[in-house]
Amino acid sequence: MIRIQFHQSLDELRERLLVMAGLVEQAIQRAIEAYDTHDPKLCDLVKMSEPAIDRMEREIDQLALDLLARQQPAAVDLRFILAIIRINADLERVGDQALNIAYRVNDLWANPPVELPVDIPKLASLAAAMVRKSLQAFIDRDEAMAKAVLAMDDEVDKMNHDAFRSLGELIKGNPAATQQALHALVICRNLERVGDHATNIAEDVIFWVSGDDVRHAYSSEKADASVAPANS
Amino acid sequence: MIRIQFHQSLDELRERLLVMAGLVEQAIQRAIEAYDTHDPKLCDLVKMSEPAIDRMEREIDQLALDLLARQQPAAVDLRFILAIIRINADLERVGDQALNIAYRVNDLWANPPVELPVDIPKLASLAAAMVRKSLQAFIDRDEAMAKAVLAMDDEVDKMNHDAFRSLGELIKGNPAATQQALHALVICRNLERVGDHATNIAEDVIFWVSGDDVRHAYSSEKADASVAPANS
Repeated sequence: MIRIQFHQSLDELRERLLVMAGLVEQAIQRAIEAYDTHDPKLCDLVKMSEPAIDRMEREIDQLALDLLARQQPAAVDLRFILAIIRINADLERVGDQALNIAYRVNDLWANPPVELPVDIPKLASLAAAMVRKSLQAFIDRDEAMAKAVLAMDDEVDKMNHDAFRSLGELIKGNPAATQQALHALVICRNLERVGDHATNIAEDVIFWVSGDDVRHAYSSEKADASVAPANS
Repeated sequence: MIRIQFHQSLDELRERLLVMAGLVEQAIQRAIEAYDTHDPKLCDLVKMSEPAIDRMEREIDQLALDLLARQQPAAVDLRFILAIIRINADLERVGDQALNIAYRVNDLWANPPVELPVDIPKLASLAAAMVRKSLQAFIDRDEAMAKAVLAMDDEVDKMNHDAFRSLGELIKGNPAATQQALHALVICRNLERVGDHATNIAEDVIFWVSGDDVRHAYSSEKADASVAPANS
């Protein structure tokens, strides 16, 4: 009986995490739509969603903590709860990035429009796809899918590195576009961080499903790989 | 008897976390010294320390996980172990930032030197002080000190915001300095992220000592406050 209750609580935890994920994905989606459409109302929507995301993060943490304290989960259940705690923190930080992007998009479009030599919508959809796929791997307990997310991060890092170079060239050729280029640069880096968080989520899924700790095994340059190729 | 062993294990966990913190603080220190001295050997030292930091992170996580699984810690002990798990993750990410800074410093000084209108050593020592103080709060179980760290983050964010503005002006006035300015900008943002991680650590100390969840209560703009003032 207690066992059944425990598993109901685990299900509740999983469901709430998916609601949290939905809020966060929506925030990223809206921030990028604001970039595409120049619509400041979408930025406002992102800002308004932040308190709900923060509240949801605290509720999930509290529920996970209560479960750890009241039950004595072992092995796979313990790993599941710890994975939820970590994924929860990463999702909240993805929400922070959505907020940062929303502010930057507002700043960017407050300047005269310029042709930017970066495909931000493409970078954004790749980063968003990483988040979606890492959560799908979580739902399906799919280790192979989680590993595919780790591979996608290399593409995000490469695009971000190219953006750094091409935006630098834009500024040199057209100093009047400096502000716009700097805002675009920061948006690219925010999207790169979204990819980093999706990578963390994928690693947590692998940790939960397999018991392996894969962190740092796939890539020695997790947080800011855009930098390394500049030396090579 | 079992209780004594448990508390010995908690002490061991704390000690290992402090060793981890020492490695990470040293990495930040060296990256900044590399900026000051233009000495690429210091950057190499930072890169070489990364595997040790990553290994230490995994060991601490494993130890914490074993403790959670074998013992059934409740209340303050449970919060302590969860705080360690979180602080450990934040320290590893501070180490990532040290690595990013080291790469950027190499890139920066590969260009002709220019006068940069940002006091990076000052920003760096503020960010490093936040990390040190958040760990001191952890060692001393000092909630007031942890709260002081949260206040320091506003200063880091303000400096970073000013850097964004002044580096943009440098580029406009002197397009030949674009590369150097962009590298400096990224170093500033890396240091801001160090401050964010120190803030997370301070919040975890408060969570452990007081049982309060203070996240999002002190600042609505945790991750990238440098952006918000640009709108105000």
